[in-house]
Amino acid sequence: MNYVLTHIPERENKPRNKGLTMVMDKGLSTREAEDLVASSGKYVDIVKLGFGTSLLCPDLENKINVYKQADIKVYFGGTLFEAFVARDQFEEYRKYLLDCEVEYVEISDGVLPIDESLKCDYIRELAKDFTVLSEVGLKTGERHLTNDEWVEKMKAERVAGAWKVIAEARESGTIGIFNKDGSANTELIKTIDEAMNADNILWEAPLKSQQVWFIKNFGPEVNLGNIATNEVIALETLRAGLRGDTLLDFLPK
Amino acid sequence: MNYVLTHIPERENKPRNKGLTMVMDKGLSTREAEDLVASSGKYVDIVKLGFGTSLLCPDLENKINVYKQADIKVYFGGTLFEAFVARDQFEEYRKYLLDCEVEYVEISDGVLPIDESLKCDYIRELAKDFTVLSEVGLKTGERHLTNDEWVEKMKAERVAGAWKVIAEARESGTIGIFNKDGSANTELIKTIDEAMNADNILWEAPLKSQQVWFIKNFGPEVNLGNIATNEVIALETLRAGLRGDTLLDFLPK
Amino acid sequence: MNYVLTHIPERENKPRNKGLTMVMDKGLSTREAEDLVASSGKYVDIVKLGFGTSLLCPDLENKINVYKQADIKVYFGGTLFEAFVARDQFEEYRKYLLDCEVEYVEISDGVLPIDESLKCDYIRELAKDFTVLSEVGLKTGERHLTNDEWVEKMKAERVAGAWKVIAEARESGTIGIFNKDGSANTELIKTIDEAMNADNILWEAPLKSQQVWFIKNFGPEVNLGNIATNEVIALETLRAGLRGDTLLDFLPK
Repeated sequence: MNYVLTHIPERENKPRNKGLTMVMDKGLSTREAEDLVASSGKYVDIVKLGFGTSLLCPDLENKINVYKQADIKVYFGGTLFEAFVARDQFEEYRKYLLDCEVEYVEISDGVLPIDESLKCDYIRELAKDFTVLSEVGLKTGERHLTNDEWVEKMKAERVAGAWKVIAEARESGTIGIFNKDGSANTELIKTIDEAMNADNILWEAPLKSQQVWFIKNFGPEVNLGNIATNEVIALETLRAGLRGDTLLDFLPK
Repeated sequence: MNYVLTHIPERENKPRNKGLTMVMDKGLSTREAEDLVASSGKYVDIVKLGFGTSLLCPDLENKINVYKQADIKVYFGGTLFEAFVARDQFEEYRKYLLDCEVEYVEISDGVLPIDESLKCDYIRELAKDFTVLSEVGLKTGERHLTNDEWVEKMKAERVAGAWKVIAEARESGTIGIFNKDGSANTELIKTIDEAMNADNILWEAPLKSQQVWFIKNFGPEVNLGNIATNEVIALETLRAGLRGDTLLDFLPK
Repeated sequence: MNYVLTHIPERENKPRNKGLTMVMDKGLSTREAEDLVASSGKYVDIVKLGFGTSLLCPDLENKINVYKQADIKVYFGGTLFEAFVARDQFEEYRKYLLDCEVEYVEISDGVLPIDESLKCDYIRELAKDFTVLSEVGLKTGERHLTNDEWVEKMKAERVAGAWKVIAEARESGTIGIFNKDGSANTELIKTIDEAMNADNILWEAPLKSQQVWFIKNFGPEVNLGNIATNEVIALETLRAGLRGDTLLDFLPK
């Protein structure tokens, strides 16, 4: 829109390489996907069909087309990749992706332990046909990654061909880059930020307090993911300094 | 759908007697009810029009028909039954149900104290014209049921004619079979499970952690209720082992 | 509807001066706004397009018309007013409001410090062309208002021409008239209630526990705001004594 207001942070238009908003679709109907596009399409860069929901969606082809026609990238949650690998069905997953005509894929090891070199092999392999997002971080507290391991994995996966590396937080925002109470694990995030080009990281940040934290610390064009379908406009107001939490952040002092 | 994946737990098709998913509709428009059917209809067995919302719904007849045409059973929240009984208007309630052409009814005493023998009389009476779900458990902490009282009431209500007995948790999931922090009251649930046929119990489990707990402890075909309208597909991925929390639970070791 | 039930508290029909329900729209599509009207239109008095969302809405004119045609008043969040004032663009805001053909406006100082006499000047000025809602209360804990200051500001803003004064709680319900845990700041609310005519106050109360508290303490026709779009019918059941929390409150003892 043509802002009436001065001093609104600039945002690149889609398709863009930073300031990405990734939304989690947990099972919308096709008409609800149309509503998402109607209300927020220009602010949504990527839609993740969360975990294995794509397999349960009764109208998958049409829903994917709704997103694609709005210039929104679509990929399936990494848990679905893990589900195929856990069954030794990697080739079937590749076929499934081709059948669905999605151009993006997430590779993760959040639940299923996968040797890092094998994970990078999967990335290299799928990067031949798809744009790969890899995810680093575990979904449970049973195993643990040191801050250095986070960075090593991220670097290796970028080298293997990942377009972006996702930093895990789950839908709840209480693990990975966040503490159990949802507050930022600032040491970990700082370590990642110092080692990586921020444009290549997609931070999962489902809670408003987390979105505010990232925008205040990384600026309005930080890449944020796991945004709820009904929070996209609200997030965009945070990026634009049009919500109380960031109202005074982008004004001249 | 035809799963590409192996080792997905079997699910009976609707109409089924176990593995039921009961969804709480707190006031959807008719078009939103259509969206629920479009996205999730095959996974929804029962819709409860929560508490007294049916009386406030401006388009009730059409909404009920949307659900019925998708082979979804519809009933009104037990609180509405209690509202009529509290006014000594039981006969008016029966007439209201017949007018609305619903075939299911919930009988509860979550707020209004009703003598158990009288509650069973209501069950017997309504079971002549409707399929009855009775609910056990209190909505506030002011009164208390012992674990044995839970079981006695459940048994008596089944004998009186209840098709299923609902175990109370409210929309919040913080009372009845759950503790104040939402964790499972494992002693109570174990006591109920040992005394009753699990297929006859419908556990209210609105929070994801509760759904995970029941699926891990009772298997993918446990009956679960008070599911939010936008969480049906997510629940189904838990039942199918297609979400991180249950990804490894149904695989051969 | 014609209640089948006796002893339901009376509610004035719209347009009304008390018992108002103000809903927060954080970015609905036009079709979703139609759904809100279809399910709940007769229970919604006012819709606030929260914070600066109106500037980001791709179909603003049509959405506003959907609400207006359902006899729902529309105004933009006070944060947008503050965003214009912070840029010394007050006149542009007036023009923007006229362009959008909204008849209501919120004036607040929740984030931007504005001298109270200047705030009252803005109220007087905008009251010439619009119906003004002013808001008292801060959005962060960095500054603090005493209970007496709350009342002084409310009185001054009513005198300056505010139709209603909104008591701040944010979307989260954890500040202003509520404590950090969401419980009511009873001393503050009591102080306000003793000094003001309750019909002139619009209490933000996004959480169910807060709505219950106000209905139990102020009756079913208390003015409540920041209601989520999918909670309007649920709130109305609380006002009508058709939900467990208030089921027994309006019955003869």
